[in-house]
Amino acid sequence: MAVYTQLGAEALAEIVSAFDVGALVSAKGIAEGVSNSNWLIETQGHDGSGARFILTMYESRTDVSELPFFLGLLDHLAAKGCPVPRTIHDRENSAYRLYNGKALALIEFLPGVSVSAPTPEQARAVGEALAHVHLASADFPGTRANGLGLEAWIEFAAACGNEGLDGIEPGLTATIEAELASLAASWPADLPRSVIHADLFPDNVLMLGSRVSGLIDFYFACTDITAYDVAVTHAAWCFDADGRQFDRAVSAALLSGYESVRPLSESERACLPMLARGAAMRFLLTRAYDWMNTPSDALVSRKDPMAFARRLQYYSDPANSGIFARSDSNQA
Amino acid sequence: MAVYTQLGAEALAEIVSAFDVGALVSAKGIAEGVSNSNWLIETQGHDGSGARFILTMYESRTDVSELPFFLGLLDHLAAKGCPVPRTIHDRENSAYRLYNGKALALIEFLPGVSVSAPTPEQARAVGEALAHVHLASADFPGTRANGLGLEAWIEFAAACGNEGLDGIEPGLTATIEAELASLAASWPADLPRSVIHADLFPDNVLMLGSRVSGLIDFYFACTDITAYDVAVTHAAWCFDADGRQFDRAVSAALLSGYESVRPLSESERACLPMLARGAAMRFLLTRAYDWMNTPSDALVSRKDPMAFARRLQYYSDPANSGIFARSDSNQA
Repeated sequence: MAVYTQLGAEALAEIVSAFDVGALVSAKGIAEGVSNSNWLIETQGHDGSGARFILTMYESRTDVSELPFFLGLLDHLAAKGCPVPRTIHDRENSAYRLYNGKALALIEFLPGVSVSAPTPEQARAVGEALAHVHLASADFPGTRANGLGLEAWIEFAAACGNEGLDGIEPGLTATIEAELASLAASWPADLPRSVIHADLFPDNVLMLGSRVSGLIDFYFACTDITAYDVAVTHAAWCFDADGRQFDRAVSAALLSGYESVRPLSESERACLPMLARGAAMRFLLTRAYDWMNTPSDALVSRKDPMAFARRLQYYSDPANSGIFARSDSNQA
Repeated sequence: MAVYTQLGAEALAEIVSAFDVGALVSAKGIAEGVSNSNWLIETQGHDGSGARFILTMYESRTDVSELPFFLGLLDHLAAKGCPVPRTIHDRENSAYRLYNGKALALIEFLPGVSVSAPTPEQARAVGEALAHVHLASADFPGTRANGLGLEAWIEFAAACGNEGLDGIEPGLTATIEAELASLAASWPADLPRSVIHADLFPDNVLMLGSRVSGLIDFYFACTDITAYDVAVTHAAWCFDADGRQFDRAVSAALLSGYESVRPLSESERACLPMLARGAAMRFLLTRAYDWMNTPSDALVSRKDPMAFARRLQYYSDPANSGIFARSDSNQA
């Protein structure tokens, strides 16, 4: 959450002039995205009536060779009517440019704000929007491996080490080892795959009231099990931030909204409990790794890994297996 | 440069509803200001045509009892036609409110961008704008002591300590001691005083081309020697960032622009070299203190104190005394 590169008026004006969007009127560095620099830009627009954009400068953690996938996906989904920002192509019709050796893209600004405590109505709308993304991406030609899948979890656990994990919470190593073994043994191989967002937390959804006005930050998007994206979104939306409180109504609405657009197959639904454990594991491990590798006095806030250890525990408890069962309230 | 407080859509909507500005449409945390949290907010506006504001939440370093001075000053200057943002009063006509124990204010959004390498034309416009602020503040009833004046410099130097200062650059202690003694012995006592901005760096000026569209960040504003503000602005605008290169044309344009609105008296002009040494000292010492008290691996970027030690050296060199002399090019 920072602006890593400082750009003065002169540099910003030069950048904007490569696009057919009119002259620069305003630019504010915004605290969004974990690893890129972003500005909310206002220009005079084609016709002088004003236009707004997000200018993203990709810092070292983004591989420029992957930008055609990420940016092409936005254009593909936007063209199909999904509420995702279009990329603005430059005068040479490129979706991104280089400036001082760094890649940058100008992206449509979408209204809306991110909710903290979603209502069932909002969760339903998010479920619907996610399903639309899954359907709309069916004929997207790009593919990208999920760099944060099962294999990566095993590597993250090893990189954290037993001492590190137990230092976060005594017994965490044993829990993770047992869960990883179980997931590795039975992770589904035959479920439908598609492009998935893979990080659809409330932070990455813009809403106006109960309407989804924007799905953003597709920089973890990849090709993977479609229903795993439902599981990630479930883990992201159906608990309070620290993972102590599960919201059954939000959960039911999210699944119901999703299925109103793209019904889950019997096998997808049957696998949801395991996919949800995987989703909880993914964020538990990346957070644990970041926790151990971020100084406690750094300005960037560390996110508590235990918030996802609690979700993992919730999903693993047989007493909660009913939350993914088909019921009247979960049907479209 | 960070957002210290996270506010979700629900909290933001509640905050905005206290003002007569229409419903919340968008909010982006912006990387502006060193010690407060800021959001660029869009609402539907009175009439549904949209309106934009900066929402500032004052964190621990701002004394709430001083907000009436800072915010009242903005309203006073804006009413007099200065390009400063008005504060939006809430439905109870307050310029600031409390939310969860923290003060916040909704402030007019102004267009424009901050330049990195000002042209003489831009410096002239800034000089004019600064002079307008000085004239317009004459009948502002508020007063505020300058907490970063000569006495504070002496305290900062002591807090840094000889070892600390010489650790930044060998010999820095001796330079600072000699300069502080000289400034303390002859700091002017009889020059005209007014409200001054006291921190008018390019970062705090929004420009559209060569026009000043906004003067912002008045949180160092105070009552002090008017010409000292000219000196601060001179130190901020007339050198490259690291203080190695002085721009004579920018300097002449800044002073000429200022005097086209508010001519300096003979005594003010005669004191400018000393006031400029004081201005350089102020930023040298606060930067040295921050440098010594910010871990080198912290995400907040430390500003090099030597950039102002070089300015101090420049202003102290008798060979450069001519830059503040009255000349044809410096006259309105």
